[in-house]
Amino acid sequence: MSDADHMAHALSLGRRGLGRVWPNPAVGCVLVRDGRVVGRGVTQPGGRPHAERVALDQAGEAAQGATAYVTLEPCAHHGQTPPCAAALVQAGVSRVVTALEDPDTRVSGRGHARLREAGLNVTTGVLADVARWDQAGFLSRVVRRRPMVTLKLATSLDGRIATASGESRWITGPEARRAVHAMRLNHDAVLVGGGTARADDPRLTVREMGPVRQPVRIIVSQRLILPEEGELARSVDEGPLWLIHGDGAAEERRAFWAGRGARLIEAPVSRGQVCPTEMLNALATEGVTRVFCEGGGSLAASLLEAGLVDRIALFSAGLFLGAEGHPGLGALGIDRLADAPRYRLKQHRRIGADVLSLWSL
Amino acid sequence: MSDADHMAHALSLGRRGLGRVWPNPAVGCVLVRDGRVVGRGVTQPGGRPHAERVALDQAGEAAQGATAYVTLEPCAHHGQTPPCAAALVQAGVSRVVTALEDPDTRVSGRGHARLREAGLNVTTGVLADVARWDQAGFLSRVVRRRPMVTLKLATSLDGRIATASGESRWITGPEARRAVHAMRLNHDAVLVGGGTARADDPRLTVREMGPVRQPVRIIVSQRLILPEEGELARSVDEGPLWLIHGDGAAEERRAFWAGRGARLIEAPVSRGQVCPTEMLNALATEGVTRVFCEGGGSLAASLLEAGLVDRIALFSAGLFLGAEGHPGLGALGIDRLADAPRYRLKQHRRIGADVLSLWSL
Repeated sequence: MSDADHMAHALSLGRRGLGRVWPNPAVGCVLVRDGRVVGRGVTQPGGRPHAERVALDQAGEAAQGATAYVTLEPCAHHGQTPPCAAALVQAGVSRVVTALEDPDTRVSGRGHARLREAGLNVTTGVLADVARWDQAGFLSRVVRRRPMVTLKLATSLDGRIATASGESRWITGPEARRAVHAMRLNHDAVLVGGGTARADDPRLTVREMGPVRQPVRIIVSQRLILPEEGELARSVDEGPLWLIHGDGAAEERRAFWAGRGARLIEAPVSRGQVCPTEMLNALATEGVTRVFCEGGGSLAASLLEAGLVDRIALFSAGLFLGAEGHPGLGALGIDRLADAPRYRLKQHRRIGADVLSLWSL
Repeated sequence: MSDADHMAHALSLGRRGLGRVWPNPAVGCVLVRDGRVVGRGVTQPGGRPHAERVALDQAGEAAQGATAYVTLEPCAHHGQTPPCAAALVQAGVSRVVTALEDPDTRVSGRGHARLREAGLNVTTGVLADVARWDQAGFLSRVVRRRPMVTLKLATSLDGRIATASGESRWITGPEARRAVHAMRLNHDAVLVGGGTARADDPRLTVREMGPVRQPVRIIVSQRLILPEEGELARSVDEGPLWLIHGDGAAEERRAFWAGRGARLIEAPVSRGQVCPTEMLNALATEGVTRVFCEGGGSLAASLLEAGLVDRIALFSAGLFLGAEGHPGLGALGIDRLADAPRYRLKQHRRIGADVLSLWSL
């Protein structure tokens, strides 16, 4: 088993934390002594304890002389808990292998330095590309001050999401809809525009997946015009509900939703809409690292136009709705092909009767 | 090696003939004696000689006592050549295994009967589903009096084929465009509407694939308004060019294109367009079994609306053009989701930077 093999193991552990540990990174840690795994850890729900602490507790005395594989540079600063770098030293770990440096330029490298100062052998950058993919949300929040955004589209083969009369249930099959719930779960938040909230009256919770930490449901509606008798209003207890609005939202609407238990976030308006960049900045400030946008077409277009969509999850169903159907995406203001936002194919697979293709910038 | 293994071999041979042997079926034949392949045949370009004849000639005396695997019931009627059933008997073949009966109800079963009368052991229906897929064009022409139709779409992730200004080169990558040429080659004919001929000025030939039998290029234009200085007019010598028009096509336009060497086919008009059903009937009468329709959106919509599209080949490129772009498909007149034409996923794969998904009724 090579360093890369053990790191792949740690990465697979870390991935389990995605959507459950924000604002912290979803880290995985594997302790190996004499070729045997003696401890495994993943950042716990809510972000504490860290992966290293979990793995060290599991290994106990077996951590002495072990190699620690950690998907992110161990922390070196005293926060709510003692730093992981110190814990690794204290436990007698002799070697630390990491995938990435901490992205925060103020602390980057300090964890590694502390380990080296204590006499540990440190190797960095193992499977860094995979780790960067997995931790894109955390890296984005720290480096770009905005969460990573995945845009989900579920369309007919001609890119439509509803018939002319508005019928949209269901275009994709039950397996695809279940896959959407699984995707919601590995994002910190689900985001839709007010138009979709009004047209579809969605609940946006994760269902039929056992007991889970519900992602934050975020609705962006400049004037806060949302169905006050609908699924969202009825289900505030089922998971966090955040409403992003502009300064023109009427006081009584703010009061209604605040009274229901929703959290209101005011954001600057530009061109008659909540500014998508400002909105994502606000979410990053709240600690959100991974956003799953499920439309509608106007919100998706405004995010794409502003270059704020990092990944696309396109579910294609084998039917046609024709040019009179509702398009899945609004106008982008593109005239030249060279200006169209381009994505690289990451993966494609069959899900039930549909095809899921994943694309990234 | 089972019967199915040998039939799979024969089917793979038969597939090589697709697009090259119309109006005949693309048949494959394998002769096996004592577990050893002693002859292989595929229907030759243009439809003659038949696969059985080719395989028997290759086997020579080794055909005696052999088993013949043939993807379609051997012919029993005297046409330009003696019937294959008689040739198999005469060569001393002792057993014949086929995938399908001849679809023509007037002759169906006669080839098998003739072989049995001569004392040969006959097994039918081996890998019939695969054979039905491969020979869908021939079966369609005989049974439904129309060719099989594959609709190709090459769109952005939001189902667009050009920017608002009409820019469309290139949405998909060179690998996908090469795959389109390969698909043209295994169809008898390539079909586009007059609007596409005017907007894109395509040549529609198969290029950079070595010396090939060019598929017939078919343009449907009710009034025969086509660019008289364009690629089609310049390239009549490069492959057959058929123009399907209504009775309103002006005499001078008919004369121009006939003079250039194009073949003119008049078809009934309905709702201001050449009737798609009548058009396909006419093509079947001409012997065409497999049609590859490359748009545009109006022709595709009229074929879909009439239930005449059997297969979809969708190339999806990783970019967005927005709702202001040109849709790949025109209006279908669908109001209820239940009325939308539904297709089953047959295959999906990456082609260069794009995804190709194949769907069938």
